[in-house]
Amino acid sequence: MKLLSFRFQGEERFGPKVKKEEAVWDVLAIQEQLEVLPEFPEKLIDGVSQGMEFVEQIRKLTEAAVQSETPEQFKHSFSEIEWQAPVPRPPKNFICIGKNYADHAEEMGGQAPTDMVVFTKAPNTVAADEETVPVHADITDSYDYEGELAVVIGKAGHKIPKQLAYDHVFGYTIALDLTARDLQEKHQQYFLGKSLPGSCPMGPYLVTKDEIPQSQNLSLVTKVNDEVRQNGNTENMIRRVDELIAEISKSVALEPGDVILTGTPAGVGKGFNPPKFLKAGDTIKVSIQSIGTLVTHLS
Amino acid sequence: MKLLSFRFQGEERFGPKVKKEEAVWDVLAIQEQLEVLPEFPEKLIDGVSQGMEFVEQIRKLTEAAVQSETPEQFKHSFSEIEWQAPVPRPPKNFICIGKNYADHAEEMGGQAPTDMVVFTKAPNTVAADEETVPVHADITDSYDYEGELAVVIGKAGHKIPKQLAYDHVFGYTIALDLTARDLQEKHQQYFLGKSLPGSCPMGPYLVTKDEIPQSQNLSLVTKVNDEVRQNGNTENMIRRVDELIAEISKSVALEPGDVILTGTPAGVGKGFNPPKFLKAGDTIKVSIQSIGTLVTHLS
Repeated sequence: MKLLSFRFQGEERFGPKVKKEEAVWDVLAIQEQLEVLPEFPEKLIDGVSQGMEFVEQIRKLTEAAVQSETPEQFKHSFSEIEWQAPVPRPPKNFICIGKNYADHAEEMGGQAPTDMVVFTKAPNTVAADEETVPVHADITDSYDYEGELAVVIGKAGHKIPKQLAYDHVFGYTIALDLTARDLQEKHQQYFLGKSLPGSCPMGPYLVTKDEIPQSQNLSLVTKVNDEVRQNGNTENMIRRVDELIAEISKSVALEPGDVILTGTPAGVGKGFNPPKFLKAGDTIKVSIQSIGTLVTHLS
Repeated sequence: MKLLSFRFQGEERFGPKVKKEEAVWDVLAIQEQLEVLPEFPEKLIDGVSQGMEFVEQIRKLTEAAVQSETPEQFKHSFSEIEWQAPVPRPPKNFICIGKNYADHAEEMGGQAPTDMVVFTKAPNTVAADEETVPVHADITDSYDYEGELAVVIGKAGHKIPKQLAYDHVFGYTIALDLTARDLQEKHQQYFLGKSLPGSCPMGPYLVTKDEIPQSQNLSLVTKVNDEVRQNGNTENMIRRVDELIAEISKSVALEPGDVILTGTPAGVGKGFNPPKFLKAGDTIKVSIQSIGTLVTHLS
């Protein structure tokens, strides 16, 4: 199921894409009018904590809409809605993995770290698909792109065994981890250079995990103005999704809606000689197999 | 004004300490029953965004209670309530400053950094005053204490000029930044070692800024089992509160309820030879002048 978060007439809503149509099912409207289920979460973030049960509820709602007398009233065409990031506001900072692809560690001038490097990105950096975000030329002259597979946590957990890690995954989306390289280096710890407003576009869809049974074999391509810069595959992650969840949750209690950015493959701007940093007017497209393409414009 | 957050009969509430009594005013109950104000925020975090106007509203409510026929019904004695941290759930990770006292930078084996070091701590690490938190002996053998002045942000802001920084401060509290030194070093970036459950006790009060006109001249003492370990003063911060707010907000958009931990003076466990790390059964007391004493028990 491809879920999207959106605003319709000012209200925050969510629902699955209508198959073969450029439209979304408004599941809250279905539940409100047809009263299909005894109860249904009003917020996506409350739903994801229930995992596949929530996906099943959404399926029941859309089936009820299809069988109703007026299915059309429960659909909104994409032109009527304001897209949001799949998780409009994660409950804590993004949890980000540094140098999780060997080829990227190398282009950054080093080896892959022995122990996992984990930093964070403020949650109020979120931007939606097709959004225009600032290049922040007043404080950085080395704004860089990192296309990444993002894992959205469903069920909460602490000290999650690796074998049970996927039970805690709700789904996947695409993230563009925009990074001010100069600030990242200058301040040693990465938080400031990673947290400029608009620096975490995500989307377009939150794809539930049942649609991506093998998340470690997905091509990942990042283009800047249609020039291919990153051409990787999630099979080359040093630490895979299950290991990341197990290792992070040894320390941090994971909560529904937490988002883990799993690292980026080679081809970032800093990896070129001379570097190819971003500038106003650039368009960045990150495509991940089975998820789609996230488009970001810089101004 | 000394504000506290608490639960009463299961509900999340807040209010000022009753002067000279071990009790708190239940301002939501006052407003509900006496209808003193046209409107009043139900959540502390919504109130702090209004700054001193919110403090004024709380004053009006307690005055109305005092003048009512039954002031006692609006007070809860401390024995009736469950204390919470002054900000029970910050909207993003704690924003923490590394090595912001020269004597602490030195004991950690280095000099004060040229550029500010800023890392984060997960917001679901919060603990209340007098709470017992785990020492996490299964994953760290070097759990350490850092007593710190915590700044609670009121009005939101990005790129806040240093001269206007205090307009964005709502108040101050005490934080104990519990840190797994081994994890902090092993993973290079500090997030994991700083984010174990229960690792951010805060309290007891959120003291509004009008009561602390000079936050850069407060003694700060940390005791472990009544042995003085840290004996510092906020006048020795390398970067002061106004500069921290200006510098952080160049990158990060600050939001109401954000908490900045301003760094710790010399005397942490790692600074001793041999190191004096924490163990189950220890009691840590952090006292900051004009705020009070935050007590934490380890199990």
